[in-house]
Amino acid sequence: MKTLAVTCGDAAGIGPELAVRAMGVPPETWGARLAVYGGAGLLRRVAGFAGLAWPDGVAVVAPGEAWPENGHVVVSGDDDAAVESATPGRVQAVCGERALAWVRAAVRDVLSGRARALVTAPVNKLSMRMAGAEFPGHTELLAHLTGVPWGDVRMMFWSERLRVVLETIHVPLAEAPRMLDRAHLARTIRMAAAAAGPRVGVLALNPHAGEGGMFGREELEILEPAIAEARAGGLDVSGPLVPDTAFCWLGQGGDSPHDVWVAMHHDQGLIPFKMAAFHEGVNVTLGLPFIRTSPDHGTAFDLAWQGRANPGSFFAAIRLAAPA
Amino acid sequence: MKTLAVTCGDAAGIGPELAVRAMGVPPETWGARLAVYGGAGLLRRVAGFAGLAWPDGVAVVAPGEAWPENGHVVVSGDDDAAVESATPGRVQAVCGERALAWVRAAVRDVLSGRARALVTAPVNKLSMRMAGAEFPGHTELLAHLTGVPWGDVRMMFWSERLRVVLETIHVPLAEAPRMLDRAHLARTIRMAAAAAGPRVGVLALNPHAGEGGMFGREELEILEPAIAEARAGGLDVSGPLVPDTAFCWLGQGGDSPHDVWVAMHHDQGLIPFKMAAFHEGVNVTLGLPFIRTSPDHGTAFDLAWQGRANPGSFFAAIRLAAPA
Repeated sequence: MKTLAVTCGDAAGIGPELAVRAMGVPPETWGARLAVYGGAGLLRRVAGFAGLAWPDGVAVVAPGEAWPENGHVVVSGDDDAAVESATPGRVQAVCGERALAWVRAAVRDVLSGRARALVTAPVNKLSMRMAGAEFPGHTELLAHLTGVPWGDVRMMFWSERLRVVLETIHVPLAEAPRMLDRAHLARTIRMAAAAAGPRVGVLALNPHAGEGGMFGREELEILEPAIAEARAGGLDVSGPLVPDTAFCWLGQGGDSPHDVWVAMHHDQGLIPFKMAAFHEGVNVTLGLPFIRTSPDHGTAFDLAWQGRANPGSFFAAIRLAAPA
Repeated sequence: MKTLAVTCGDAAGIGPELAVRAMGVPPETWGARLAVYGGAGLLRRVAGFAGLAWPDGVAVVAPGEAWPENGHVVVSGDDDAAVESATPGRVQAVCGERALAWVRAAVRDVLSGRARALVTAPVNKLSMRMAGAEFPGHTELLAHLTGVPWGDVRMMFWSERLRVVLETIHVPLAEAPRMLDRAHLARTIRMAAAAAGPRVGVLALNPHAGEGGMFGREELEILEPAIAEARAGGLDVSGPLVPDTAFCWLGQGGDSPHDVWVAMHHDQGLIPFKMAAFHEGVNVTLGLPFIRTSPDHGTAFDLAWQGRANPGSFFAAIRLAAPA
């Protein structure tokens, strides 16, 4: 049976609770056994707070130790003791430090072939910064850890009803227009199609798709040439699409006219996505040397360790990453 | 009974058909009688094409002529003959020229007190431009015709489930961030509250609401001071709100936590609005000396004169403008 690496993210958030819940589901149901990076002591303590039974048949193994053939494992070493006294719902350097260590260890094990894919619970940017690691998001951190150039990585958001790839991500809105680039966008379209299907809808940047240049020229100078390039490669690309009417089908309960959409900036894609798929959305990183998924929510400090976190999005992330 | 001025917009679009349908509804049902600016000959011809019976009891009066006490009227003069041979679904200078004349005449009659409010069917920017009138939209034209400074006018989109006021409108997305201004935004919040209720949700400009300045400083330097100013005036203002999660309640079928929302740019407000209210959305202009509403769709040239136009949004615009 294949192994899926699962990191618990910020210990003070809902990640550890979600990981305990996930280990309560048998490997046969997931189609993979889970290797959870999160500290055995912490996970037992969180399970107690959250009123969750400790799952049967979970082995605790030290980093570097051999894993049993079957069953979920928790990868946990001496360094994890430091996080056992963490306070739920509070930004703490130790949580950032362990979250970073767990991602590093999981990435190493996926790259070495011990695990096939990576599922990450949310981290907190402030605690990561307090621990000396400053990244705008998980995606940027993973590009850094795998040595993949940032320009080769894309964020995709996946749900049954809607799949969206973002062309620009964690930047001020004022910078997104000037970051647009024909070659980068053509590549985004190709990556989106490879991941989700050949019918790609590309959203315009400007209101009314620029109204023929009256409200901006990016559609004429960047989007249309990029779309033409992707079409020349055989893809069925629509656009630049007028953004405000592009998602009317969603409000009316219909089906997406495209396999996947490309949005020019973070909220253009994520406003409709989070309306369509709040508890089942999955964040997928394209361009890494392995499959990586995560839930589309944050650490939810206000719900941490209480047994109240909705596991829908985290479970969907596991299902999407589980080897077919 | 009060009178509502209704302009037919571009003759080659769905406006004339919508106006004929609206006159088929008795004044008592609307709570107002309609004065339709659109050319009697054109309206009869469109009714024939669309398979609509000509409504009973409609008087045709020349511009400047006295109106009967009751019943819908069509205001139509010799100049309107030019548009009778218009071709549906095509950009034509004569359609732009008459659309402009109808708006001018209707605005004059509302300002003089003959009518109480204005409902406009959509115009086509290209035909308007061919007729020598270049405006990014109807709202800008109405500000011009009434002599109201552009900085005093706001666009609101109204539906049962969601009401949104836009802080910037028909500009390239790259320009929206640098147009943001504290005093203008504070005024927008006050106008939104006056029109729709005191609980105002103000959307952030940047992803994650700027993440404490990491992805843009407009929240810290412009939005927060404007919100503080509006709160000091007694309003219940929330924000700056993280845009991508602000509308999750809509996707889940819930109720809006605010009476009205303020969006920083066109598509930030209109993507969720058009998902929530495609066939019932109404565009309301705030800041004019009279009430003005319009449907939230365009001319729909592809459907013109065929009896296939959905009148939902146009009828909602009439209901919202009808004197209470």
